[in-house]
Amino acid sequence: MLSLAYLIAITAEAMTGALAAGRRNMDLFGVSLVAFITALGGGTVRDILLGNFPVNWTQHPQYIYLTIGAGLCTIFIAKIVHKLQQLFLVLDAIGLITFTLIGCNVGLTLGYEPAVVVIAGIITGIFGGILRDVLCNRPPEILHRELYASVALVVALMYLQMRKLGINEDTTLLASFSVGLLLRMSALKWQWQLPIFTYTPERWQDDNNV
Amino acid sequence: MLSLAYLIAITAEAMTGALAAGRRNMDLFGVSLVAFITALGGGTVRDILLGNFPVNWTQHPQYIYLTIGAGLCTIFIAKIVHKLQQLFLVLDAIGLITFTLIGCNVGLTLGYEPAVVVIAGIITGIFGGILRDVLCNRPPEILHRELYASVALVVALMYLQMRKLGINEDTTLLASFSVGLLLRMSALKWQWQLPIFTYTPERWQDDNNV
Amino acid sequence: MLSLAYLIAITAEAMTGALAAGRRNMDLFGVSLVAFITALGGGTVRDILLGNFPVNWTQHPQYIYLTIGAGLCTIFIAKIVHKLQQLFLVLDAIGLITFTLIGCNVGLTLGYEPAVVVIAGIITGIFGGILRDVLCNRPPEILHRELYASVALVVALMYLQMRKLGINEDTTLLASFSVGLLLRMSALKWQWQLPIFTYTPERWQDDNNV
Repeated sequence: MLSLAYLIAITAEAMTGALAAGRRNMDLFGVSLVAFITALGGGTVRDILLGNFPVNWTQHPQYIYLTIGAGLCTIFIAKIVHKLQQLFLVLDAIGLITFTLIGCNVGLTLGYEPAVVVIAGIITGIFGGILRDVLCNRPPEILHRELYASVALVVALMYLQMRKLGINEDTTLLASFSVGLLLRMSALKWQWQLPIFTYTPERWQDDNNV
Repeated sequence: MLSLAYLIAITAEAMTGALAAGRRNMDLFGVSLVAFITALGGGTVRDILLGNFPVNWTQHPQYIYLTIGAGLCTIFIAKIVHKLQQLFLVLDAIGLITFTLIGCNVGLTLGYEPAVVVIAGIITGIFGGILRDVLCNRPPEILHRELYASVALVVALMYLQMRKLGINEDTTLLASFSVGLLLRMSALKWQWQLPIFTYTPERWQDDNNV
Repeated sequence: MLSLAYLIAITAEAMTGALAAGRRNMDLFGVSLVAFITALGGGTVRDILLGNFPVNWTQHPQYIYLTIGAGLCTIFIAKIVHKLQQLFLVLDAIGLITFTLIGCNVGLTLGYEPAVVVIAGIITGIFGGILRDVLCNRPPEILHRELYASVALVVALMYLQMRKLGINEDTTLLASFSVGLLLRMSALKWQWQLPIFTYTPERWQDDNNV
């Protein structure tokens, strides 16, 4: 199940990358690159941070073809994307949660501390989107929207706690997946947000980052 | 002494990260993430560049809690931060210099060439701030202000030279720390800057990065 | 021949980095840093992604001096740079192609899959420029200009195919180098571009990256 969810996840994330590239009027190569990095960037950053070489996608070239293909296909369906928005949001949520669970699993397998495992999960979940936004020169959107990264946090904590309690892996995955999806969908429906921190210093302070 | 300075350093840097996130109206998660990356990003980039796995903070989860905690606390004291600006600038300078000294030490221990050791020091000192600015979608501020990165360079060169001369490590640390702090504080007081390079090409050149 | 081309390449790329820093009014340190990262960043990202430690430039401190020196020299010749624009474009093309060929060679030597070898080549070729643009807070230019990254793709595919056919390495290098240079120069002369993907969603869609 997680494998299938992973394929859906990288496809959906590649498509959000392609759309972001389209907003910046990138060419076909730019679209492919941003799609690839959005889909596989989170796992790449995780593998590098955890010293987990070789990096995952280098052993699975089919992921390269899938994400670049999904990015390029997005160009042709861009006009109908807004009609599919609800579907898209579900796929994106599946992606977020799947990535997070895989990231936690990798961290745990490598024997890292619980706090590092949680961070490995969150980074896998959200960093593709952050790299996408950096490449497209916009502030990372996921850091000030409806609960998104927080969903990754909840999923990671729940997965870790259930594993610690010795609960069967399949049950753990299913439970944390469901809770995560429910939480993200509810956040979208009722626009749940974390509190926003707004800081507008006087001009003279601007000079020294304070 | 360096351990205490390090804790002060990551706390102060986490707080500058939180303030930068606040200027972008990020939510609590965004504030935590930017604080964490600002504080620990420089050392992370250094460890990855030098192939020094496992990355330092993954072995010290307490640094994760400290930097995220400092980031979140900043929200509550944001209103009085401007009254503490002088203190903040001292803490930030301590951070810059401590990070640089630790970075040089890591590079030296791993047996890298002197030029690489200096770069390891500088990267540890300044890259957290650069990642903060990239995440917050603004040009890296430290590259066009009063002497900042240059302080890291002076500290790194001095540390390396004194170690090469066989001077006792404690003396070396104390001396380069003091010179760095004095230099940074003087730069702030008298607004010492490196020359600025301003390049404004004709429009037609803009097309090809020249 | 490839060694000489590499020295030309990192020099030319360092200069484009310095000019980009100049457009952002950076100080001498910022100019040095952006020059260094533009010239050596592509190879660094490749080495990290492929787990190829120690990272190449850490074993060749002369590259550090060369790129920083080239960056600083650029300040003095900035005023005549526009007269040298044609030369510059040739040097930049040599850089792109040389980097790509070296990247493919590294990937191949490490035994990676063909698709990963091609990506290693492209990343070596273009990522210095992408990091330059991210540091200077502008959208990556190479992703929406005359054929640039696509040249890296063609060169990488050709190199890989010729090696696979058992053709002598020197011949392979010379042939893919020439084809790449011809392609890039033609693209500049006749403004060949890949199709651009422009996506301008309705405002309400903006909220969820779709």
